[in-house]
Order: sequence, then C-alpha cells, then structure tokens
Amino acid sequence: MDIVGEKAEMGVVEQRFDLEVGGEPIPGIRWMPEGATGPRPTILIGHGGTQHKRVPNVLALARRFVRHLGYSAVALDAPGHGDRITDPEAAERRRRVLQDRIAAGPGGGERVFGPEEASEWVERTTKGVTEWKTLLDELDALQAGVRYGYWGVSMGTAIGLPFVAEEPRIAAAVLGLAGLGNRPGSEQFEGSARSLRVPVLLVLQWNDELVGQQEGLSLFDAIGSMEKTAHIHPGGHVETPLFERDAYEAFFLRHLGPVD
Amino acid sequence: MDIVGEKAEMGVVEQRFDLEVGGEPIPGIRWMPEGATGPRPTILIGHGGTQHKRVPNVLALARRFVRHLGYSAVALDAPGHGDRITDPEAAERRRRVLQDRIAAGPGGGERVFGPEEASEWVERTTKGVTEWKTLLDELDALQAGVRYGYWGVSMGTAIGLPFVAEEPRIAAAVLGLAGLGNRPGSEQFEGSARSLRVPVLLVLQWNDELVGQQEGLSLFDAIGSMEKTAHIHPGGHVETPLFERDAYEAFFLRHLGPVD
Repeated sequence: MDIVGEKAEMGVVEQRFDLEVGGEPIPGIRWMPEGATGPRPTILIGHGGTQHKRVPNVLALARRFVRHLGYSAVALDAPGHGDRITDPEAAERRRRVLQDRIAAGPGGGERVFGPEEASEWVERTTKGVTEWKTLLDELDALQAGVRYGYWGVSMGTAIGLPFVAEEPRIAAAVLGLAGLGNRPGSEQFEGSARSLRVPVLLVLQWNDELVGQQEGLSLFDAIGSMEKTAHIHPGGHVETPLFERDAYEAFFLRHLGPVD
Repeated sequence: MDIVGEKAEMGVVEQRFDLEVGGEPIPGIRWMPEGATGPRPTILIGHGGTQHKRVPNVLALARRFVRHLGYSAVALDAPGHGDRITDPEAAERRRRVLQDRIAAGPGGGERVFGPEEASEWVERTTKGVTEWKTLLDELDALQAGVRYGYWGVSMGTAIGLPFVAEEPRIAAAVLGLAGLGNRPGSEQFEGSARSLRVPVLLVLQWNDELVGQQEGLSLFDAIGSMEKTAHIHPGGHVETPLFERDAYEAFFLRHLGPVD
C-alpha cells in the first residue's frame, strides 16, 4: 500500500494510496479522523457501477463515518472504474446504457446480457473480491485489532456480497439495490447470499428500475444471516433517501461498537 | 382529563388519568420528564391486542421517548382492554386464541371471523379512534403548540391507522404488524391507508403468524404518504428486534424535531 498523497479538511484526513494486486496499482482512498492513533472500526465502501472511489455519495458516507463515529473508511476504484478506465469511450457508452435503463422505468423487461458483457461482469466480481481481500491484508499489517464493516449497494453489492461471504474479517454489511435474478453468475451470487452469517442491512428501492420487487425480496430471503433487516423506500434505483444514512451509522455502531 | 395519580422514577414522571368519553372513564397514562414545563413533542402509544396501557413494551417505549428525546408519551387502555375488561373469562379466552394462532405458525390458513367477533372488531376501531381524538382535544387544552406522533403496531395499527388518517394533528406515525387482508372493515382500513399523507415507518415481520408477507407489502403499497419506509425483520409477530426502537426514535426525532 503506497501512500501517494494526503490532505486534511475539517477534521478528516484523506489519504490517497495505490494497492498493488497482481502487478496492477489499484487506486484507493483512506479517510480517518485528524490526529487518529489506535485502532478504530473501519468501513470498506464499494461504489456503484459507472461510479468511482470519490463520487459524492461515497465521500459523504466516508466523512460521516469519520466525523460522527470516529471510524475510518476506505474505498477502491472497482475494476474498470475511476482511474482504472482504459477505454473512456466504452465507459461513457456503459454509463449511457445504464442511464437509459433507469430512464425507461421499472419493469422495462428482462435485461439481456451479451456474452462479452456477461464475462466482463463475472471477471469484475472475481477481481474485485481479490482486491478487497488484499486491501484487508494490508490494513491488518498496518494495525491489528481493527473491526471491519462493508458498505456497498448495486455493483457494490454485486462485488461486495461474495466478498463479505468469503471474508471472516468483515463483521457486518450494508448491501442493497440488488436482487436474485437472471444475471451473469447469479447461481454463485445466490450461493454467497445463503452462506452469509454476519448481520446485514439490505436497502431496497420499491420502484427500482434495475431490480424488481420480487428479485430484491428473494435476495432478502436468501441471505443466511440470523440478523438481517430490509429497509424499503419508494422511488427509483438512485433515490434512496438521505436519511437512510442515519440507519447505516446506527447499524455499524451497533455491530462494530464505538471507538475504544 | 382527571389526574388520579402521579409518581416519578429515574427522572420520568408517570401520571395516571381518566379520560371521559361518552360517559365512560378511559384509563390512561402520561409520561414526561421530571420538572418538564413548556410544550414538547408527544407520542401517542397504542398497545396491541390483549395488551394494555402499561405492558412492558409500551412502558419501555414511553420511558425511552422521555429519557432519550425529552418527549412526552401517552397511552390509553383500548376498548375492552386493560382496566376496561368487564368479562375476564372472555378476555382470557381471546388471549388464548391469539396465543394458539401464533403457536400454529405462519400461513396457518385464512382466519375466519364470526359475525360477533367481526362487529366487535369494527366497534373497537370506531370507539378507539374517537377516544384518541378526545385525548388530543384534552392535551391541546392543557398546552398549545405540541407536535404529535403516533406509535402503534398490530391492534395499535388497526385502531391507529384510521385515527392518523383522519387526524391532522398527528405529524408522523410508526405502524406495522398489520396488512391488507380479509378482515372486518378491511375496505375502510385500505381507504384510510390510501388517504394517509404523513411520514410512516411501517414495521413488518417476515414470518408473522398473523399477517402474510403479501398482506404486509400490500399495506405498504397502499399507504398514500410520500415518505414511507418499510422495515422488515425475520421472525414472528412478537419478535420485532429490540434494536428497532432506535429506528422509532430516529424517525420521530426527524419529523417532530428536538424539544424546543
């Protein structure tokens, strides 16, 4: 983990780093309270599709976890996202496809994945899981005794749910805006959901243009954790109300505890 | 509103009163911070079927609202409940029927209401709504400028939802453990749900022995409020996790605000 830059703003230190995984530098950001020493609960934040490690909602969440709870937070650019985009035109095309699907409204028909898109989806998940694990190894090497949580919805759940399922170091997870449906790798995804054992807060949008109501509820059903909660709001995929951030905080505070 | 007793315990004043409605004294309790003056947000708490105004969960909630938020809380015995039971054997029979239905597990078949039980259900709702309105009139006469919320699940929703729907003085409501189904007065109930306009937090239990999943979700769909949230947990009718109380507090604080 190569620190490549650091600044502090209103009590929050923002540290940019590169994580090396398989010879590729993965750009990431770590947020922590200014002057923080000692271990503190740390939330891994997985951004959504077409987003990156420092989009407004990731940044806002990270700063809340630091300012309100005294926690640390960390985010990575997912494979093919943010500073890892190698073909800007293809990325822009993908962004427009996603926008069009959201604009088409809920129930716009079954999404059909071409073989290229399908293998890209599966590969991205596999790589993403490996990168989060490597990040945890590096964070553990920096400081022992840290309790970890994961926050990630939409693509942040597509990658994050299998990650949390295989990673005993994650003690609690906020997931959502995802479901069980006809997507690439959906059998493995469902299997991961069934194997989850940590507390999960699943956020769903009742008029999600990308995830049907039953798909989301089926994911809730599949999650194997004893403690799981679904929070459902009206509105579309990107319309989760801001007050839900209070629920994320309360959830992590309940499971990771206050800073020692 | 006749004050008939008062005690204070750990900073919480508990005042017993009788509310007169149609010549009948309705026993109630009002909780408030010791030494409280000035108006403060007040939560009306409607207990569940076979319960009464001071069962442990009502008492615990009232004390939380007082201690954590500085609010007031107030509860009434519902028609035919608590100190208003005139036929203890019939009440005990009803309690056992409810217990048996819960013990039988979810999906134990459509509940069939006899004509007597059906008219009792409808009459209880009508009376209950009138009593809550009368209570608000009395509270308003005691102190102007109070913001009111309503909390009530199960029978507390059967009575409370129509009450909140007709009562512009209630600014936010926690409801739940109820659904749209084949119950006495269900058309009026659904109509009330559709006419709701205040923020609602609807708590549902995913393995509720008395309310089917689809019945609960249909109620969520029917609620006409722009801001509504469903919180769903696994488990049966009486197994809402205790941590959900944090969500009630956050919800009321968001909508009724802090004590001036």
